[in-house]
Amino acid sequence: MNLERYLEQRRKLVDQTLKQLLVDHETPPRTLNKAMQYSLFSGGKRIRPILALASGEAVGARLARILPFACALEMIHSYSLVHDDLPAMDDDDLRRGKPTNHKVFGEAMAILAGDGLLTEAFRIMAQGALRKRQDRTAALQAIWEVAAGAGMAGMVGGQVADIEAEQKKPTRKIVEYIHTRKTGALLRASVRVGARVGGATSRQFTRIDQYGTAVGLAFQVTDDILDIEGGTEKTGKRVGRDAELNKATYPAALGMKKTKQYARELLDDALSALKTFGPKAEPLRQIALFVVERAVPAEP
Amino acid sequence: MNLERYLEQRRKLVDQTLKQLLVDHETPPRTLNKAMQYSLFSGGKRIRPILALASGEAVGARLARILPFACALEMIHSYSLVHDDLPAMDDDDLRRGKPTNHKVFGEAMAILAGDGLLTEAFRIMAQGALRKRQDRTAALQAIWEVAAGAGMAGMVGGQVADIEAEQKKPTRKIVEYIHTRKTGALLRASVRVGARVGGATSRQFTRIDQYGTAVGLAFQVTDDILDIEGGTEKTGKRVGRDAELNKATYPAALGMKKTKQYARELLDDALSALKTFGPKAEPLRQIALFVVERAVPAEP
Repeated sequence: MNLERYLEQRRKLVDQTLKQLLVDHETPPRTLNKAMQYSLFSGGKRIRPILALASGEAVGARLARILPFACALEMIHSYSLVHDDLPAMDDDDLRRGKPTNHKVFGEAMAILAGDGLLTEAFRIMAQGALRKRQDRTAALQAIWEVAAGAGMAGMVGGQVADIEAEQKKPTRKIVEYIHTRKTGALLRASVRVGARVGGATSRQFTRIDQYGTAVGLAFQVTDDILDIEGGTEKTGKRVGRDAELNKATYPAALGMKKTKQYARELLDDALSALKTFGPKAEPLRQIALFVVERAVPAEP
Repeated sequence: MNLERYLEQRRKLVDQTLKQLLVDHETPPRTLNKAMQYSLFSGGKRIRPILALASGEAVGARLARILPFACALEMIHSYSLVHDDLPAMDDDDLRRGKPTNHKVFGEAMAILAGDGLLTEAFRIMAQGALRKRQDRTAALQAIWEVAAGAGMAGMVGGQVADIEAEQKKPTRKIVEYIHTRKTGALLRASVRVGARVGGATSRQFTRIDQYGTAVGLAFQVTDDILDIEGGTEKTGKRVGRDAELNKATYPAALGMKKTKQYARELLDDALSALKTFGPKAEPLRQIALFVVERAVPAEP
């Protein structure tokens, strides 16, 4: 399969659906819509929705069933970036090369746009779950997964731990604790949601979950590497920003060599979790390869 | 019935359940829990959960079915207060006579505590919906109701409209637009949720919804009155704060006399919507009376 083409097609599908759900059904006030859409349509890679769709595919599900959940995951990711960038948080002026939400709309509107994206994500999932012939128990489990991945034991908790760690020396334990929550939990939730709504057997679910845990961490490990070694064009943010903010990162805790080794180990974990899956899981495999090899190319 | 005793019992039931759900099942980080609990357990009247429970009662439902949803409504109300008080929003130092969340925990933590309360509210609803013998379609409808009432067409949208109106002369239309969304939508959602999860017939649902629309507005109309005529002990905030912030209020748009008339009309609407209900709807009736008469006593 051609991963690049696959990602492009899926990204378009997600963008179309997000537009249908949010732009075609706008409700006033206008400014709130503008602020929400500004961040939601600012050129993200849509990795969370694509992971959800690919997990659904791996268990043979129709994409239409997964799409509302996939979109909700992206909306939650988007809200988290808007709030993270606020002056009281990371105080960032640029995101993906564009002024951050509060720089354009002001702080109050950015807080509310984030709140709106988070709340609407759940409305859209409930709406998707109420569709005809949708398995409602699976849909409710998926809503639970998303909330758990995004909430106090997941993303929000990780963000708090991240802020608190800025005053501490980063150890491997602290870094792992932060990243399994801050980014790992929602990425893992993404594959779990796809598997749940897609009707995975409990054996399939366990394996996809193993994959998700590994890829969720790999994503952050490689992000940490790219923050040091990647250019702005690869990451969309300034090189060295983590070190500047004294962030707890893998290279700071393990050194660069061990961090790269760890990324390769996580790739192995992700791929071996999918061993019993056939060609339908090829997108999941290719995504794991892509995530790791963008930062740690395979040795020739 | 003795309303005071009823409200006290229900408040206790809600508090107990919130403690079970959040305090007994704490997950680190500790600071996040502390910040979330600080605002959630700061002596609110629990009016939204009580409305949800009373609506469930009115259609003969068991309270246990409604409780997770009732608690979620209070968590969402609590998050909205934490975010509203932020320096970028209303910039309030006191809430119910205590320092606001960001005054105690800092701005970043207050933003995250709000995000956490909002997200966990949906986790708790999904969890409640997945219980044995819960009607999952009704539960999903209830989750939808809450998200719609709290989201961009509801509370968040109303908050944006409120901020934007600070620069305008308040007309009745603007005030009504703001308040049906900012406070009305979540109060209305509260009774709708109780009716949905409680298994209301569609005729019962329509009537309870009419009641909710009227009471939701009455709540805000009387709040506006009390902001001028009530003492701090009745409202928990400084008298005249709305005028100070140039807020769009009913007295500013209609004058005090018409505002009081309007409150009595809304009370009539609320009570007549419940005419066909028997004694099981007595709590709903008494709550409507209480809401309006705390600000506009019946003439002798």
